[in-house]
Amino acid sequence: MSETGPAFLWANSGDSHYMEPPNLYDELPEHLQELMPKTVRDEERGAEVITVDGQSFERPLPKPRTREQWLSTAARPKEQHLDEEEGEKRAPGAFDPQLRLVDLDGEGIWAEAIYPSLGTWTFNIRTPELVREGCRISNDFFIAFQRQSPRYVVAASIPLLEVGDAVAEIRRAAGLGFKLAFFPVRPPMQKPTWQHDEWDPVWAALEEHGLVLGFHIGTEPVDPTGYIGVYHRGRGGAVLNYVETTYGGQRAVTQLIACGALDRHPDLRVLVSEGGATWGPFLADRMDEGYRQHGAAVRPTLSKPPSEYLYTQVYASFQHDRSAVQANLAMGWKNVMWGSDYPHYEGTFGHTQKTLHELFDGVPADVSHRIRIGAFQELFPHVPAPPTP
Amino acid sequence: MSETGPAFLWANSGDSHYMEPPNLYDELPEHLQELMPKTVRDEERGAEVITVDGQSFERPLPKPRTREQWLSTAARPKEQHLDEEEGEKRAPGAFDPQLRLVDLDGEGIWAEAIYPSLGTWTFNIRTPELVREGCRISNDFFIAFQRQSPRYVVAASIPLLEVGDAVAEIRRAAGLGFKLAFFPVRPPMQKPTWQHDEWDPVWAALEEHGLVLGFHIGTEPVDPTGYIGVYHRGRGGAVLNYVETTYGGQRAVTQLIACGALDRHPDLRVLVSEGGATWGPFLADRMDEGYRQHGAAVRPTLSKPPSEYLYTQVYASFQHDRSAVQANLAMGWKNVMWGSDYPHYEGTFGHTQKTLHELFDGVPADVSHRIRIGAFQELFPHVPAPPTP
Repeated sequence: MSETGPAFLWANSGDSHYMEPPNLYDELPEHLQELMPKTVRDEERGAEVITVDGQSFERPLPKPRTREQWLSTAARPKEQHLDEEEGEKRAPGAFDPQLRLVDLDGEGIWAEAIYPSLGTWTFNIRTPELVREGCRISNDFFIAFQRQSPRYVVAASIPLLEVGDAVAEIRRAAGLGFKLAFFPVRPPMQKPTWQHDEWDPVWAALEEHGLVLGFHIGTEPVDPTGYIGVYHRGRGGAVLNYVETTYGGQRAVTQLIACGALDRHPDLRVLVSEGGATWGPFLADRMDEGYRQHGAAVRPTLSKPPSEYLYTQVYASFQHDRSAVQANLAMGWKNVMWGSDYPHYEGTFGHTQKTLHELFDGVPADVSHRIRIGAFQELFPHVPAPPTP
Repeated sequence: MSETGPAFLWANSGDSHYMEPPNLYDELPEHLQELMPKTVRDEERGAEVITVDGQSFERPLPKPRTREQWLSTAARPKEQHLDEEEGEKRAPGAFDPQLRLVDLDGEGIWAEAIYPSLGTWTFNIRTPELVREGCRISNDFFIAFQRQSPRYVVAASIPLLEVGDAVAEIRRAAGLGFKLAFFPVRPPMQKPTWQHDEWDPVWAALEEHGLVLGFHIGTEPVDPTGYIGVYHRGRGGAVLNYVETTYGGQRAVTQLIACGALDRHPDLRVLVSEGGATWGPFLADRMDEGYRQHGAAVRPTLSKPPSEYLYTQVYASFQHDRSAVQANLAMGWKNVMWGSDYPHYEGTFGHTQKTLHELFDGVPADVSHRIRIGAFQELFPHVPAPPTP
């Protein structure tokens, strides 16, 4: 990659994904196996059908643009990247932990926080036994993935239908060696949102066992009567739906801070992956204003202004955002972290070095290091440092 | 106010309010009069009942904290302001355009974009005739308010149940001398959101007649079966509900940009009032990423990346946010504008000079001037400059 710039830049990724093998749930009893999340792609119809726990969801397959379509697009942001259009197919290591390292070395991605892909559907399961057994099997499989490289920080799947199950799997996952727990930005249907005291034992368990609480955006459980990830149709819909995905992560953070969970658990760390980062200083100011101006209605009272929890205990990953570097440099939020989203569509595979140089050339070395390397290391201090380029 | 700091700072406000007189709708025919928004405060029960067009909504009255309650609050952000707790009652000029100037002079607020208070309920009206006649009477009354000082930029009320009525009232309001039109962040119930082509004649009319499109946050029409402005109850609810109010403004901007309205109407200017400002650079980056990465699904194609419309045609006002100054200085969004929210509860009445000095002391003079004065002047060039202090 040396031809793309003068220096090869390494970066840790606060947002990556594994792809589940098709036989992941083979050892589940048959009556449970068939209920776990499955996806069938129908290329001819251009649709993908996801089934989970007796529910079925259909969504259009992304249609990569042809080169002609792309070039005919009148507005092409300067930082366009032709090759990303082919998306997941072009990441040879997507399914293989060893091949993956080859991809990462080529891109300049060092260590990764790795979330599920198909496993995001787990939160649509309505049967406690099913989600409990499914998470157990998934965690047993993916801890073996994690052990293939000290650069892998795989997120444990947590069953959220019974708080006791969640606490038990957090404990078990920590024992296996997980350092990160994957949470949806909104709990499963029929469960209260994160500020409710029902979740308190979960935050306590994460803190006690030293697991980072990882919210990945776009993980709202799906109403089976609605459209998947589609809030708006028609004119402007694609951009509107993409923007909408960030708000769930912001809400989850607000819920945890406003309910006092981060106050009661000062060692609990939260990572919001793929939602951008510049929302952090904005949300901090907004929470402080609400906390102060509506002070008479605030419950509970916190030991510090809301912003201080966000600035110290909350981290966020972004991919391309120009403003994210300034959220650290000018606004002082040190927990801004880069992320690759490897091997997904919104990610940087194929143009990581170009993106890193666009983001960090001319940025003070300590800030560049903090966003690319340091913030991640603070969350996962066991991970070795990248080689000196 | 000279005892609070070395220099008296003037600032224009991108977010202020008028208070409607109780007899505003007296000249409406009786059968319409009784359907216009009314509010009755029941101090004993600590509740306020709003009635509009046969619908009735109740919400708790804000309970000002006693000094003892305030002092017992463990976490008090440094920039706390005791006096704001008494809220609206302490602004003597709230109901009187001449007394108001005395308040403004004392605070250092020069010119103001002035929105309705009770009039925000207009968007819950379901009868076209009612909203059309109500807006007409309100605009006739408040243009007289505006004429009492060149510092007043009052927002015209626009009937939105029939696009033809909206276009007609925009034209009439411009003829009366209005320079700003008040829009809710979400259209009335049963109407499509702003990206829909049904609204295209409205954007064309605003551009043609030189009216700024003013979205004031917290103006989502209320579902009569739900709670007013209450998204969350219980633990953390006050902060959560306050934070939630900002997203409507962000969505409205995304809708206008994504559907191409700002592309087709390059002279249309949008002001988002009271929703903070640091979301701007964040949303710009997020829209660009969605536009680029989901390019195959984007309709319509725009002449420029989405961020460029936001950076040039969209303005936003904030009150206290520390990060908002950096959104201009470090992130380059020149359309950040200060706002007082006079005479409302979240505003700066009683501590405006303190707030302005906290925000702008040490900030380069051109940036301070742009946020306090210049961005507003760009939207409303007819307004005279503040006196040299």
